[in-house]
Amino acid sequence: MAWEPDQAGGAGRPTHRAKVVRAPRKEGPRIQPDLVGKQQFQGKHPGDRYVRVIRQHSGDFAHAGPGHLVATEEALEARGPVGRGFGRIKRLLIGPPLSTAQAAHERLTKTKALAVLSSDALSSVAYATEEILHVLLLAGLAALTYSLHIGAAIVVLLFFVGISYRQTIKAYPAGGGSYIVAKDNLGELPALTAGAALLFGYIVTVAVSIAAGVAALISAVPDLHGHRVSLGLGFILLVTLLNLRGIRESGSIFAVPTYLFLAGILGMIALGLVRNAADGFDARPPIAPDGEVIAATGSLGLVLILTAFSRGCAALTGVEAISDGVPAFQPPEWKNARATLTWMIGILAVTFSGITFLAHQYGIVPLAANHPGGYETVVSQIARAVFGGVNPADYDFQFATLAIQILAANPAYSDFPRLAFFLARDRYLPRQFTFRGDRLAFSTGIVTLGILSGLMLAGFGGETGRMIPLYAVGVFTAFTLSQGGMIARWIRLKEPGWQRGLAVNLVGATATGIVTIVVGVTNFRKGAWIVIVLIPVLILMFRSIARHYANAAGELAEQTPLDPKDIEHTVIVPVAAINRVARQTLAYARSISDNVTAVHVTDDEAEIEAMREAWDKLGTDVPLVIIESPYRSLVGPLLAYIDEIDQQRPNDTLTIVLPEFIARHWWEQLLHNQTALRIKAALLFRPGTVVTSVPYHLERHTGTAGGATGSTGLGRRM
Amino acid sequence: MAWEPDQAGGAGRPTHRAKVVRAPRKEGPRIQPDLVGKQQFQGKHPGDRYVRVIRQHSGDFAHAGPGHLVATEEALEARGPVGRGFGRIKRLLIGPPLSTAQAAHERLTKTKALAVLSSDALSSVAYATEEILHVLLLAGLAALTYSLHIGAAIVVLLFFVGISYRQTIKAYPAGGGSYIVAKDNLGELPALTAGAALLFGYIVTVAVSIAAGVAALISAVPDLHGHRVSLGLGFILLVTLLNLRGIRESGSIFAVPTYLFLAGILGMIALGLVRNAADGFDARPPIAPDGEVIAATGSLGLVLILTAFSRGCAALTGVEAISDGVPAFQPPEWKNARATLTWMIGILAVTFSGITFLAHQYGIVPLAANHPGGYETVVSQIARAVFGGVNPADYDFQFATLAIQILAANPAYSDFPRLAFFLARDRYLPRQFTFRGDRLAFSTGIVTLGILSGLMLAGFGGETGRMIPLYAVGVFTAFTLSQGGMIARWIRLKEPGWQRGLAVNLVGATATGIVTIVVGVTNFRKGAWIVIVLIPVLILMFRSIARHYANAAGELAEQTPLDPKDIEHTVIVPVAAINRVARQTLAYARSISDNVTAVHVTDDEAEIEAMREAWDKLGTDVPLVIIESPYRSLVGPLLAYIDEIDQQRPNDTLTIVLPEFIARHWWEQLLHNQTALRIKAALLFRPGTVVTSVPYHLERHTGTAGGATGSTGLGRRM
Repeated sequence: MAWEPDQAGGAGRPTHRAKVVRAPRKEGPRIQPDLVGKQQFQGKHPGDRYVRVIRQHSGDFAHAGPGHLVATEEALEARGPVGRGFGRIKRLLIGPPLSTAQAAHERLTKTKALAVLSSDALSSVAYATEEILHVLLLAGLAALTYSLHIGAAIVVLLFFVGISYRQTIKAYPAGGGSYIVAKDNLGELPALTAGAALLFGYIVTVAVSIAAGVAALISAVPDLHGHRVSLGLGFILLVTLLNLRGIRESGSIFAVPTYLFLAGILGMIALGLVRNAADGFDARPPIAPDGEVIAATGSLGLVLILTAFSRGCAALTGVEAISDGVPAFQPPEWKNARATLTWMIGILAVTFSGITFLAHQYGIVPLAANHPGGYETVVSQIARAVFGGVNPADYDFQFATLAIQILAANPAYSDFPRLAFFLARDRYLPRQFTFRGDRLAFSTGIVTLGILSGLMLAGFGGETGRMIPLYAVGVFTAFTLSQGGMIARWIRLKEPGWQRGLAVNLVGATATGIVTIVVGVTNFRKGAWIVIVLIPVLILMFRSIARHYANAAGELAEQTPLDPKDIEHTVIVPVAAINRVARQTLAYARSISDNVTAVHVTDDEAEIEAMREAWDKLGTDVPLVIIESPYRSLVGPLLAYIDEIDQQRPNDTLTIVLPEFIARHWWEQLLHNQTALRIKAALLFRPGTVVTSVPYHLERHTGTAGGATGSTGLGRRM
Repeated sequence: MAWEPDQAGGAGRPTHRAKVVRAPRKEGPRIQPDLVGKQQFQGKHPGDRYVRVIRQHSGDFAHAGPGHLVATEEALEARGPVGRGFGRIKRLLIGPPLSTAQAAHERLTKTKALAVLSSDALSSVAYATEEILHVLLLAGLAALTYSLHIGAAIVVLLFFVGISYRQTIKAYPAGGGSYIVAKDNLGELPALTAGAALLFGYIVTVAVSIAAGVAALISAVPDLHGHRVSLGLGFILLVTLLNLRGIRESGSIFAVPTYLFLAGILGMIALGLVRNAADGFDARPPIAPDGEVIAATGSLGLVLILTAFSRGCAALTGVEAISDGVPAFQPPEWKNARATLTWMIGILAVTFSGITFLAHQYGIVPLAANHPGGYETVVSQIARAVFGGVNPADYDFQFATLAIQILAANPAYSDFPRLAFFLARDRYLPRQFTFRGDRLAFSTGIVTLGILSGLMLAGFGGETGRMIPLYAVGVFTAFTLSQGGMIARWIRLKEPGWQRGLAVNLVGATATGIVTIVVGVTNFRKGAWIVIVLIPVLILMFRSIARHYANAAGELAEQTPLDPKDIEHTVIVPVAAINRVARQTLAYARSISDNVTAVHVTDDEAEIEAMREAWDKLGTDVPLVIIESPYRSLVGPLLAYIDEIDQQRPNDTLTIVLPEFIARHWWEQLLHNQTALRIKAALLFRPGTVVTSVPYHLERHTGTAGGATGSTGLGRRM
């Protein structure tokens, strides 16, 4: 009912309003006030009341039952032109919002999943052979032939890891990343270690992949050299935006180039094998290009072989993506995921062994990054040897490498947000990581990954070489913990066939454990120490977040009853001048409590008497306290006064009712000091103060003095 | 009284609290709650109540009378470490706050006033002669001799203007800038024209002076060339900060260099005259340096003479500073100001005529800015001729020029804020310009001037030559309007001796009017058009600001009585989960109204039934409405619901009571979604919605489950 008795006689429900100043926002059916008059709400049971409230409704809601509304897409629309503008840009970039019910449609088919989740592993395979050859080269050209033995060992390990993950997927059909497996079988500390190692690993993966992609682009277009970092950040932004569009849509976008790259690699291997077979599988002796003499700087011992093996194990990174991503598959999730994993392992085995074999057969020697004749990858050298000389396929291969490297960043964009979701669900990360965005993707995780990997890329100046040592330790730590978790599980549950599973995981855990140690030791000074320092820091962070949530939940759960009747109010109203805003605010304050004090802060001694007289004329029963502020500060003395009153009445609930003057336009708002905002900001972190903003919205004046026209009903503006 | 009945038996005033969680901020005397128990407030007259409230107090306040406190400096201290840190930095930069009562001590002595207010005029004199010579040179070297005649005319005009301003100071002892004089005698439009012209003029003055100072510095240290703009912005920041320290302190800082420069100039003139007298006042013929041949491009006509005259009138700019700044003088203000003006006019006449005469006698030819042998000012050429050749005084003179140019920006820092104060007092500018800062200076004006002149400097790339054409039109428009105002005043009031005064002002107005037109026409295409466009725009802005304030004041002054009993409340409480925060907020909402509805927005269909059951267990009489949000948005559906209810109950006062969870540390705050903040932001510009924040401050938990210990009394935290 109106604040002003000139409208409806003061008491009783008004049957008619002369004019409603604010136009209704929508053209939906306008509700007749008498349909929802207040007295009708007083049902027998308090729950009866809301039935009436929602009896009729605009397009914003559908009615689902008593006291139960379902918001439509219309209700999402932002109010105000600025908000609508932002909304439109957001839709343009990431697409219209999807409802939660659409989640099942957003699942990945096996074909798309293979593209989305295997690009990281595929790109690892492309350089794993090169890593092996680089290490062997330290023992001279002749040592390169051992790449065949090491490659064979890695393929065997790949099969073990593959079988192991097939078991994991079956055991954890709701998603079995290292964190989940370690948590379920080994306890909190191993789980958090795996979580920290993987989160950091994903950030490095994105930074390294994008940086490598940019390096490939720059070697094709050298003019771009000076823009390395900004190009990298641009690609990260692009991949982030694509992933915000949702997993299915990004799957469609990424599928084509992944399969094209795969076709190219497989075609190259097939043609190479055929040509080599035609030569009677004759292996050319390795010859350094440009007739360079390569001196052996080390001898071929166990350490060198182990190092070459662990470097080659890079081929295994990315294999875990599918077992992490089981929930993204179409149902039956675990079966589809397992089939996709089998395909992926097969493809990896073929490509890795094919590349390693052809490199040996064609006598390829890996080049140093600063090779005087220009650097070229081992795969590119093979392609040149297979396709022969000045084929245009050669040039295309640089772009294919660029593409697959950029794509290699993509699985991390599925895995990081999902792992962050699991950690946040267990309260080790902020709750925001559990929210699904407009497109049902975990937006917070995607954006966080984009920002952190962008910072890393910029921090390392976009140089791949400086970031790679950070990479493997974390990933293999997580691998080992995952295998270890499965070992514990076999022993604990002793399911049928557990001996075979245990054997597979024992081999896997031993091999990945050795790789972890070798990689950690050999790269320690080149950057692996950062990971070894960072993981405990992250674990501490996870734990203190969990402690905070536990404390908060504990405190909030207390069931002490609260009776509104026990609340004693002390209300303070800061008053700048005696005008309509102040009177409206005072009336509001008095309507919620009879213990109201008005406070006027002034820097003008001369004004005090006039203020007091005007106050007495007001005829209110609210007392006025005047605070003289010789230093002209308003907020300081007001806060000091509130502190004072609070100390005097420690058991009361203190409410500060602030008059807030809202102009029609932002530029008009600048003409008024933002005192209310400043007071609100100062009170925000003051314990135990309720802050009430009573807005006064200035009307569009057209000359007549309002009031009598009935169009200035405060009930409308309050 | 406590919210929790376990503390004080639910009803009745508690006599003792087990423990107060929050430590009192100060060590001041702690007030016993029973001294100010609520029932004691109920005096016969409402005014009696506040007497008790402030009976005892900490160091924050002194008690000045019933309901009248005076805040001490202690009450200004910011709460919280961040606020205190800012406070400390502010004090370091601009000094401790001064109380309003100290204003009289901040006035300027005549010596300081001369330094603060005349540096602009002094620096103008230093280049006025050069401007005359440049114009005359167009008619050939021989025409330079006319500089003596033009100089004499300008000195005569200087005396007229000086006498005129002496009269203005007497007539307007409270400050008689052009705006005031025009407003008092000519009406609103001429006053606003003068105001706009001067405000813009001051901004240009600062930008030009600083840019010229930087140019002098760069010609001494050419390595700094690339840093022109950042050096200029640095000097503007420095001058701004010095002026924020208050007028007296900046006066002390600026007095020494001004007087040093003055002594240098006067010494040069004296020595030059003596040497020239020793040569029998023999005038050397002007010879272009480096034997350059200067061809006359025009003939010596009236236009050329008028142009040279109006350029030379630059010597007059800055003269108005003292009449604007009368209120800054020690009492008797107008007498001190008048004496200072007389001194200033004398000094200007001596320096201007001395420089003009010596330039003629030593046959100085002004150099183009891009002179191949290196540019040198006329004053510097004179100094070299007088002091002779390779004197170290020569090099020092560059730095003195730098200093006086930087100083020349300073009067604008007194005049702009004061003029803005007058305009804001008359409601043509935002009210904030009337506030005095910590050091009693008009901080808003000072900061605004710093920002706008910095933008101008940066916008014109710090090039003096491009900004000078913007300068003179505005200043001379204001001069002419001021003189015109005085003419109108003489005719209107006919005070004793009005004929003499009228004659002086008629000459002054005619001369400055001619200068205005000549300057406007000759510089029109070089930039004066900007001024001619800008002044009407500024006037429109002044007027719409005044209109806004008038409308607001009119609307706010309406005396419709407001009775708190007429307010019908509709209260909506958004509830995220049923926990202590929610229960506290619901209890608060119910204590202010019995028409409360709780709203729960969820994106999880499965959760709805559990929520409803938990609600029923709560045993509250507040009905719960559940909104299902299939698009997972929280704010959109909530706002749509509020709109809906508002449409249904148009005469009620709508209050949204928001539970606000406040963690102990900012990093903990990040762990909770900022939903309350987002809802508040969305509601800020929604007309007619009262927003109440009920904070819940998380405690520092130490393991025990609170509650029973009595240390979690909500009365403390609410």
